[in-house]
Amino acid sequence: MENYAHNGHGNGNSNGLHPKTGRVITCKAAVVWGPGQPFVMEEVRVQPPQKMEVRIKILYTSICHTDLSAWKGEDESQRAYPRILGHEASGVVESVGEGVRNMEEGDYVVPIFNGECGECRCCKSEKTNICSKYGVNPFKKVMVNDGNTRFSTKDGKPIFHFLNTSTFSNYTVVDSACVVKIDSHLSPLTPKNMTLLSCGVSTGVGAAWNTANVGSGSTVAIFGLGAVGLAVAEGARARGASKIIGVDINSTKFIKGQKMGLTHFINPTDLDQPLHERIREMTEGGVDYSFECAGNLDVLREAFLSTHEGWGLTVVLGIHPTPRMLPLHPMELFNGRTIVGSIFGGFKGKTQLPHFAKQCMTGVVDLDKFITHELPFDSINDAFQLLVEGKSLRCLLHI
Amino acid sequence: MENYAHNGHGNGNSNGLHPKTGRVITCKAAVVWGPGQPFVMEEVRVQPPQKMEVRIKILYTSICHTDLSAWKGEDESQRAYPRILGHEASGVVESVGEGVRNMEEGDYVVPIFNGECGECRCCKSEKTNICSKYGVNPFKKVMVNDGNTRFSTKDGKPIFHFLNTSTFSNYTVVDSACVVKIDSHLSPLTPKNMTLLSCGVSTGVGAAWNTANVGSGSTVAIFGLGAVGLAVAEGARARGASKIIGVDINSTKFIKGQKMGLTHFINPTDLDQPLHERIREMTEGGVDYSFECAGNLDVLREAFLSTHEGWGLTVVLGIHPTPRMLPLHPMELFNGRTIVGSIFGGFKGKTQLPHFAKQCMTGVVDLDKFITHELPFDSINDAFQLLVEGKSLRCLLHI
Repeated sequence: MENYAHNGHGNGNSNGLHPKTGRVITCKAAVVWGPGQPFVMEEVRVQPPQKMEVRIKILYTSICHTDLSAWKGEDESQRAYPRILGHEASGVVESVGEGVRNMEEGDYVVPIFNGECGECRCCKSEKTNICSKYGVNPFKKVMVNDGNTRFSTKDGKPIFHFLNTSTFSNYTVVDSACVVKIDSHLSPLTPKNMTLLSCGVSTGVGAAWNTANVGSGSTVAIFGLGAVGLAVAEGARARGASKIIGVDINSTKFIKGQKMGLTHFINPTDLDQPLHERIREMTEGGVDYSFECAGNLDVLREAFLSTHEGWGLTVVLGIHPTPRMLPLHPMELFNGRTIVGSIFGGFKGKTQLPHFAKQCMTGVVDLDKFITHELPFDSINDAFQLLVEGKSLRCLLHI
Repeated sequence: MENYAHNGHGNGNSNGLHPKTGRVITCKAAVVWGPGQPFVMEEVRVQPPQKMEVRIKILYTSICHTDLSAWKGEDESQRAYPRILGHEASGVVESVGEGVRNMEEGDYVVPIFNGECGECRCCKSEKTNICSKYGVNPFKKVMVNDGNTRFSTKDGKPIFHFLNTSTFSNYTVVDSACVVKIDSHLSPLTPKNMTLLSCGVSTGVGAAWNTANVGSGSTVAIFGLGAVGLAVAEGARARGASKIIGVDINSTKFIKGQKMGLTHFINPTDLDQPLHERIREMTEGGVDYSFECAGNLDVLREAFLSTHEGWGLTVVLGIHPTPRMLPLHPMELFNGRTIVGSIFGGFKGKTQLPHFAKQCMTGVVDLDKFITHELPFDSINDAFQLLVEGKSLRCLLHI
């Protein structure tokens, strides 16, 4: 059980979910100490939430490829250790800092790595879900408020934050701009499956709905059939796409993918022609929309060329920690193909996610089929391995 | 005067505008024999139009940077000599081939390098003005019909076509998909200024209207203030943009540009900070739309970074005959900036250009101010020099 201490000083104990605010909590977290090093479960101290911050008791967390990329330290400039990773989770508000409105102790919430301050030019625009203040910044490792961390080791060494969230911990502190209250009382939405709203499923479904605006009867190709790629399929299926072609070098993904709406599957290693040529043959000159969910620039180029000239749209969801630039020639833009990035599926987290949650509740999107494994928190290293090996879509860790 | 001969055999003479169809015309053309070599005015033979082709008596032609690029032979793979360049012109239909409807001898027309067959998937889609059959293809040097040229030297050597048009000639033969009939009877539209509809002004104004859909009150930056760049300004002005920032290393461009609506001007050589930073300072974080009309990849990157995160759109109009790929990192797409190419301003030539011509007629756009010089056809080399030196916007050649 967790221990609560007065704000950085005392050692008073408590066992409940509703401790007095203003106390430091000592709890378990999975800490990473260096690139690719195994997670170490250790006792960490979690400061109380400051002004406009929220401390969350994490109930479930899962692992996404962005965690994997950060864990490996693929981008050297983003390394910061010790650090608590994790950004896909659900939990309960433990306490709120000064000024937090519309959220209180006991509320079911999901943290969002792509925050929404509601005040910046971007938040005030309908054209984007990027937030200038709490947007995705993998270099950010401290709280925006005061530039400090809210985590430390037992002996006081600061532990860095990750993606506004840091959910591989019993408790975490996040800016209130990065927490969304979800009405979880109505079946089939549960704290367990609403974890998927926190990143993967929202990212994929939203990319199809908000970024691409896939329409009925349109054709789609998805490159990389992890949870995000399959969530794109789910989103395209819900919109009535006529052809949803999945591409992956792991053919077993097709079995799972059919449940999410895949109508066709290509394993590029089986082809004796360029992938984009095959897709163009299947779709009268190219798909209307392609989605790059593999984080690989050669795949990205194939995704781009797989779309129809004149109107093809390629949506990039994969993380590309590479020094390489886009492998597209400027003159290729004149063929009328467009490429855009999609963050968190284009959802404005605080204002739009609750509605998306309701759509999941009514069955438009089925969250449960994305949960393929469940493990106790202590087995986080095994859960990472499942993802590395492509065996899991989402492995839920019980915190 | 031109000489007309029976289809490739006879030598019968005629002086009128209305010769019998089916005869070879001997006339003057400016022929280029090698990359960067001066144009040679010589007698060429122009075959009669074949099925669905139109032979046009060119009245005026002007020179665009695409001609310049092709003349220099910047892209080695696109070289083909001897060749008749030129694609911005106006003229009169001299004769039509079998099957041509809605166009006849004596009609005032402009050739369009970006054709519209009306039959392909692209032509049938509202989402693009690209034509799969008669789209821009700088490698194409012969007629689509039969793979032959309609031009030859006096001694029978084939002379290659350029961009579906080849207007540096008294007469040219083009596919009917690449000719638009324009009602030129109503002032102020004349065969002289409607030449500008054939490429430059349509390309620039259309990029602002169709590709970017610039709205009232929005902010715009234009990189490269040739005729196309200034036509973008004209289009943005007509749409009510609140700030139109022109960027050019030639400060004299600002004087001309103010007439087209430029509200601000930056000469990057005067700056002691990165260009995109300066533009972001001037526009609360970046312009809504930027237009790259310089054909330079470093400029393209600045144009991209000058737009506002979240919704900034960069429209590429410049020709980039370079082996370099796009100087954009894939992760930069996640800042919500988009880059697209624009061909012929997004206008479907045959179906939309007549309406645009009417808008010019009613003064929405003023074509005349783009004509800065006029010269006889024989002075084509001087006209090229004016463009190379940045002295002319459009120099009209009287054919």
